[in-house]
Amino acid sequence: MKTQVAIIGAGPSGLLLGQLLQRQGIDNVILERRSGEYVLGRIRAGVLEQGMVDLLREAGVEERMEREGIRHDGFELAFDNRRVRVDLKGLTGGKTVMIYGQTEVTRDLMRSREAAGATTIYEADDVQPHDLDTERPYVTFVKNGETQRLDCDYVAGCDGYHGVSRRTIPADRIQTFERVYPFGWLGILCDTPPVADELIYASHARGFALCSMRSATRSRYYVQVGADEKVEEWSDARFWDELKARLPDDVAAQLITGASIEKSIAPLRSFVVEPMQYGRLFLVGDAAHIVPPTGAKGLNLAASDVNTLYRMLLKVYREGRDDLIARYSEICLRRIWKAERFSWWMTTHLHHFPEAEAFERRIRQAELDYITGSPAGLATIAENYVGLPYESI
Amino acid sequence: MKTQVAIIGAGPSGLLLGQLLQRQGIDNVILERRSGEYVLGRIRAGVLEQGMVDLLREAGVEERMEREGIRHDGFELAFDNRRVRVDLKGLTGGKTVMIYGQTEVTRDLMRSREAAGATTIYEADDVQPHDLDTERPYVTFVKNGETQRLDCDYVAGCDGYHGVSRRTIPADRIQTFERVYPFGWLGILCDTPPVADELIYASHARGFALCSMRSATRSRYYVQVGADEKVEEWSDARFWDELKARLPDDVAAQLITGASIEKSIAPLRSFVVEPMQYGRLFLVGDAAHIVPPTGAKGLNLAASDVNTLYRMLLKVYREGRDDLIARYSEICLRRIWKAERFSWWMTTHLHHFPEAEAFERRIRQAELDYITGSPAGLATIAENYVGLPYESI
Repeated sequence: MKTQVAIIGAGPSGLLLGQLLQRQGIDNVILERRSGEYVLGRIRAGVLEQGMVDLLREAGVEERMEREGIRHDGFELAFDNRRVRVDLKGLTGGKTVMIYGQTEVTRDLMRSREAAGATTIYEADDVQPHDLDTERPYVTFVKNGETQRLDCDYVAGCDGYHGVSRRTIPADRIQTFERVYPFGWLGILCDTPPVADELIYASHARGFALCSMRSATRSRYYVQVGADEKVEEWSDARFWDELKARLPDDVAAQLITGASIEKSIAPLRSFVVEPMQYGRLFLVGDAAHIVPPTGAKGLNLAASDVNTLYRMLLKVYREGRDDLIARYSEICLRRIWKAERFSWWMTTHLHHFPEAEAFERRIRQAELDYITGSPAGLATIAENYVGLPYESI
Repeated sequence: MKTQVAIIGAGPSGLLLGQLLQRQGIDNVILERRSGEYVLGRIRAGVLEQGMVDLLREAGVEERMEREGIRHDGFELAFDNRRVRVDLKGLTGGKTVMIYGQTEVTRDLMRSREAAGATTIYEADDVQPHDLDTERPYVTFVKNGETQRLDCDYVAGCDGYHGVSRRTIPADRIQTFERVYPFGWLGILCDTPPVADELIYASHARGFALCSMRSATRSRYYVQVGADEKVEEWSDARFWDELKARLPDDVAAQLITGASIEKSIAPLRSFVVEPMQYGRLFLVGDAAHIVPPTGAKGLNLAASDVNTLYRMLLKVYREGRDDLIARYSEICLRRIWKAERFSWWMTTHLHHFPEAEAFERRIRQAELDYITGSPAGLATIAENYVGLPYESI
């Protein structure tokens, strides 16, 4: 088999890259270890930056998002039993975010790819890129018990943190940067109306809490829990009690509780690998970097990598700009590190760190007090939340 | 002896408080352990916030400052061999800072106090406040071998970090917050023209450097050095070489060197005590809090405490607002912690921390990259540098 771009991973980044290239006539094949149903079963973030919304429009998959997505003009920070609104639209000159689940984005992209007749090979086992440092790389995989070979010009590693792409790069050619936070997020999904129209990020001495939503009838709530806690220890009743205790009184009083339809604990980690490329392999999204979920940057960062790689490949194929290839990582990383910083900032300033020194705690309180009391401070939060501009190619 | 307000310490905060009260007819006596000449021999910071300049005007000691001080509309941050200007005036709607040495402020206040005939007792030994938790506090001291007693309504502890005032408060009534940084500042004073019209704060892998000035012909330069380094190890030649190595090339090329007229190493520390009061004793300035010098907040914070205490005492004496007394600390601390945060931020992001993890380094680089590339980010730096608004009483 032969293609121009081999894409490893049929998550939203692989599918979005495939879709964008496809529409420009650049042939690509997606290899995915799991089934399509499995991919769609993953529940993930749902806050899309303006830039990602624009990119989905460019990919021609905006139709359902425009209809079912919820535009948010702001969100709230809650602490000391009070709420401060971050007026995204007002503070950024009109930018907003879109609430639309990652699962829905993935579904839309899958359907569109199917309709276009582009090739996705699901349940491809033992996917392995080869000869990445030559001009003729290829990817092998096993399908229905048979080993196959996909020849290509370039390989896009969209296969996440645990995927094979990053692990294919020789260890001495990359450097990793990591921070593991001493807590996790216990999240529940629930068919109740959201407690507020906008997201509420709450900082409390008992720990962080987040009120989020998927739709007008489906809520998503989170509470910070210890790194070693088990989901079995958290009955719905205990969860709701803990959530209420961490919210401002007026919010807690409005909370409508119900039976959870999903409940899980996720760890929080910051991770970046440098560089994000090796020969003709380009890492995209979680394969190269992880952010803690505070600030909802994970999916959006994957989209900005896709944007960079897509525009770069367009110039390579259309204008022979092979010189750009070496710059992919450098172009991506500048924006990625700023988003890593924002996610780290939101995590550090809104969570309870059991081991923090007294001085550190006061500094963090002062930062929250300063930022939320200053229009310039609020503007820094807002412009990061809606997403910093994409780097130009 | 009897007065309304006993002020311990004849540094700039004690003198400024005394001057302001004096002009409103509130009697005060200043007790100072050292001689006037000794106090004037201390070389300290010289960047005055807009609020402090206004307060000096209100105290009627602005005449020489207006003539000899240098107004600065901006300063520069240097890193990666480039310079980013922080346009203080443009970013804050017209606010600026004044370059005028702490020694000069002190001298102006001393002269003004002498002219007004107010009492300052220099070389007062064994100063000790008593009965602070009663309605009749007093201060004892030894002058010319004789113990004397000063009865008063209130005591203002303006005697710095090492002074007796804070140490008089029972240990179980206060909490301290502290951060000691693993480096110091080696500073030299030199009769050469400054390398630039504005201050340059330089971040470099070899360590932080600062180009500052006292006048058009007197420069003040600093380099970060290890906490255990000795000033004897630093010849002038070594200092200039190290400074040049840390500055952008174009700045280093312009540097005019010369013989140092003062050279010393100062440690860097953040320190806050809570609350800043005990009975009828109020701590002011360094007696209650220390900031590292990055961002020049030390003297300015003392001035904002003076402003708070002065306006509070005015309302107490004029309007019988005794209820305000209990709120002195709370009112001061909100602004103090924001300035502690800013000083910590400037220190953390511009200095080299030998022990920092790789992830932390990248986050700090990203923060500097973000802040200096965003108008909102630059505005947060600018508004803190010119000084956040004084808390209203």
